[in-house]
Amino acid sequence: MNPHATGTPAPHPLDTAVQLQPLGQATEGRFRGHTSPAYANMIGPFGGITAATLLQAAMQHPARLGEPLALTVNYAGAVADGPFEISAQPVRTNRSTQHWVLTQSQGDEVCSTATLVCATQRSTWSATELGFPGAPAVDSLPPPSGHRGPAWTRNYDMRFVRGPFPDLSQGDEQPESTTTVWVRDEPPRTLDFVALAALCDVFFPRVYLRRRKFTPAGTVSFTVYFRADSATLAAQGGRSLLAQARGHHFGGGFFDQAADLWSPDGVLLATSHQVVYFKE
Amino acid sequence: MNPHATGTPAPHPLDTAVQLQPLGQATEGRFRGHTSPAYANMIGPFGGITAATLLQAAMQHPARLGEPLALTVNYAGAVADGPFEISAQPVRTNRSTQHWVLTQSQGDEVCSTATLVCATQRSTWSATELGFPGAPAVDSLPPPSGHRGPAWTRNYDMRFVRGPFPDLSQGDEQPESTTTVWVRDEPPRTLDFVALAALCDVFFPRVYLRRRKFTPAGTVSFTVYFRADSATLAAQGGRSLLAQARGHHFGGGFFDQAADLWSPDGVLLATSHQVVYFKE
Repeated sequence: MNPHATGTPAPHPLDTAVQLQPLGQATEGRFRGHTSPAYANMIGPFGGITAATLLQAAMQHPARLGEPLALTVNYAGAVADGPFEISAQPVRTNRSTQHWVLTQSQGDEVCSTATLVCATQRSTWSATELGFPGAPAVDSLPPPSGHRGPAWTRNYDMRFVRGPFPDLSQGDEQPESTTTVWVRDEPPRTLDFVALAALCDVFFPRVYLRRRKFTPAGTVSFTVYFRADSATLAAQGGRSLLAQARGHHFGGGFFDQAADLWSPDGVLLATSHQVVYFKE
Repeated sequence: MNPHATGTPAPHPLDTAVQLQPLGQATEGRFRGHTSPAYANMIGPFGGITAATLLQAAMQHPARLGEPLALTVNYAGAVADGPFEISAQPVRTNRSTQHWVLTQSQGDEVCSTATLVCATQRSTWSATELGFPGAPAVDSLPPPSGHRGPAWTRNYDMRFVRGPFPDLSQGDEQPESTTTVWVRDEPPRTLDFVALAALCDVFFPRVYLRRRKFTPAGTVSFTVYFRADSATLAAQGGRSLLAQARGHHFGGGFFDQAADLWSPDGVLLATSHQVVYFKE
């Protein structure tokens, strides 16, 4: 079928990137995917798209119960350009929670491991204690210009409020590593868990803000806590989210980062944490 | 051998609780353990001791490379009093990192899933951006009195600086959920990764501080980032650590919590996150 002939719009690059083909019986939880040039990073794919693809495997598994609550992805080794396989296994299903173990592999080599907890959200007492970061309206900030970063950055509209990508030739140490940024998929795409998982990983390495000096860096372990249900996510449409990240401790070859992502009207959608390798 | 006859001191309750018996060949990564009455919670064991026991399985596996960096434990179902089995599999070993997948089970039922990243720490640029919480000296605070909590709390000396366990009969909502507490194993025990993993989970549910009302609650997913090496941990000896926890968002039946644990002289030892079920 030719999409141009029928008027069907081309799929969003995110949907193309996370597309998975079931292998064997649907209940086996085995899927084949393929790296997407649109989400390439300097070496291998953008970590956020790997997390989104692992999550997508559970989302399209026929046994899934409830909605994603906690996702942890460990990046075990670089994913080579080409096909990969994902195994997504629901290892325990309770009345209102379900526990998954996931593996991404190429041939005999494990590229990523992951765990996922899904849950049926219930109406309870609620309160948000974390503070919504202040920011000028997204439209008051200039759109991204130029495409100097790796390919994946072209799929995100990022407008920095604080802590933009620094000039790494300066080498003058800075006292803090906070970035506040309006960010959305480019082109805009209605928000869902898969897109949100990737959005939680859009922050460049915090060590760059601190040191203003280039060093190889890459995420080792990445966790997302989804703090909103699918209806709340869908209600965001394709609007920019306000996202904030900050490093806690740098040393021994690793730093750890905390991040939070908010709807434009101050609803906390996700908190996220990662530990990141850096070389020197 | 009779420890009394030889003068060998009784093992620490923590070491007894995390004791594992290898099953089959050492390289199979299968271990048998047993729940410890000393670390019982209201239902099943204290989540921190489960995390510590899973970590212990990897620590005593002959193939382990490097030291723990990132541990995620998902509590899939209550562990019944009695024996359990742990499978600890190194699924990918790189030059300086190693990725593990772990499962705790009883019979055919999965109780917990976990992933662990170990790494060889290297000397790099270092900085701590997170602020050390202020606190009066531990000896200036009264020791714990009475034993009204579940059994596991008797194995910790906790001296609250801020946000102690509240009177749950009050029901008056409070604006924030921070606890700052000096905490160590009781009796004192030289700090290591296994003890630190458990210490990251000593905080009572943040929703109690906010609502001053009892509701069933339990950790669903728990992550520890170890931010110090084994020598730094051992140098703490059995001193109290300064630990802080805070809830971010409560709603939909879950809240998420961030915590950080410090040496008395302000070295960040671990950051930790968890998402916790609460009933209403």
